[in-house]
Amino acid sequence: MRRLFVMEEGVAILARTPTTLDALLRSLPDGWIAAHEGGDTWSPFDVVGHLIHGERTDWIPRTRIILEHGETKPFEKFDRLAQFRESEGRSLASLLDEFAALRRDNLKALQSMHLTGTDLDRRGRHPELGVVTLRQLLATWVAHDLDHNAQISRVLARQYSDQVGPWRAYLRIISGRQG
Amino acid sequence: MRRLFVMEEGVAILARTPTTLDALLRSLPDGWIAAHEGGDTWSPFDVVGHLIHGERTDWIPRTRIILEHGETKPFEKFDRLAQFRESEGRSLASLLDEFAALRRDNLKALQSMHLTGTDLDRRGRHPELGVVTLRQLLATWVAHDLDHNAQISRVLARQYSDQVGPWRAYLRIISGRQG
Repeated sequence: MRRLFVMEEGVAILARTPTTLDALLRSLPDGWIAAHEGGDTWSPFDVVGHLIHGERTDWIPRTRIILEHGETKPFEKFDRLAQFRESEGRSLASLLDEFAALRRDNLKALQSMHLTGTDLDRRGRHPELGVVTLRQLLATWVAHDLDHNAQISRVLARQYSDQVGPWRAYLRIISGRQG
Repeated sequence: MRRLFVMEEGVAILARTPTTLDALLRSLPDGWIAAHEGGDTWSPFDVVGHLIHGERTDWIPRTRIILEHGETKPFEKFDRLAQFRESEGRSLASLLDEFAALRRDNLKALQSMHLTGTDLDRRGRHPELGVVTLRQLLATWVAHDLDHNAQISRVLARQYSDQVGPWRAYLRIISGRQG
């Protein structure tokens, strides 16, 4: 049931994430956009900012480090809290626009690299995880999109944890059961 | 952090689900569309069929039963496996089109009911869960959309459980940690 990473299939997901988030979030009432799961958990607004920061500093920059320096130069550590500074005062609409533009540029950059199977086997060094391959980095880019897409749906659904009454038992996104 | 059900906010999500699923799934390579999590778990294709069956037999039909019969007439039991018959031989594109059309019609029907706060307090009888309110039914419609949206992202992400290598530890959609 598990798939191997195939560039064309991975890119098919990556190319769809901006429009998918746009379809769900643009012009949604503010209460949904700012909703979170309590404590220091993230809202949909925060997640979009995080994805933007990834486009700027993570996926393509790390791809270039692997291609140019291999294992000799560790990646920069990723700032998981950057969006709390960078998104401040911004509208969700402008964040969605920026994410879409950055993603488009990054997929163009990826395509222009004409990566081969040998390239995908190249190794780099993650500051915490150690040696990783370019294939793993690109597969993670895809899974990371999907992780945050699911997170946004979970955050929204859980706002109705009480409102659904006895149906709570059937909704695993609320009950917390994994499928 | 939890929200009360507000019709306008709930409808804002319900109206976006068809375009959100369309943005993610239409024309995605077949391997993704048919991917599942093993055993009798569902693929994105199966989930869209399930959502169609809900539009036909669950949310608005049950709303009508509550308004017309209250607690005296239990809902029909929902067939969780209907899509395996009904989607057979169909294309994903035709399922997405059908879901969008049914949802549009159902939201029009909902709007035409001009439900008041008193209506939302009306009670019906679920065949397994017992007494429920119309408010709980409509909140569940919203959360159910989001549950399946998250499920689709999870199913897709988990195809790369092995491909992401050591990043697996950071991706809770794959590692199974709840946020």
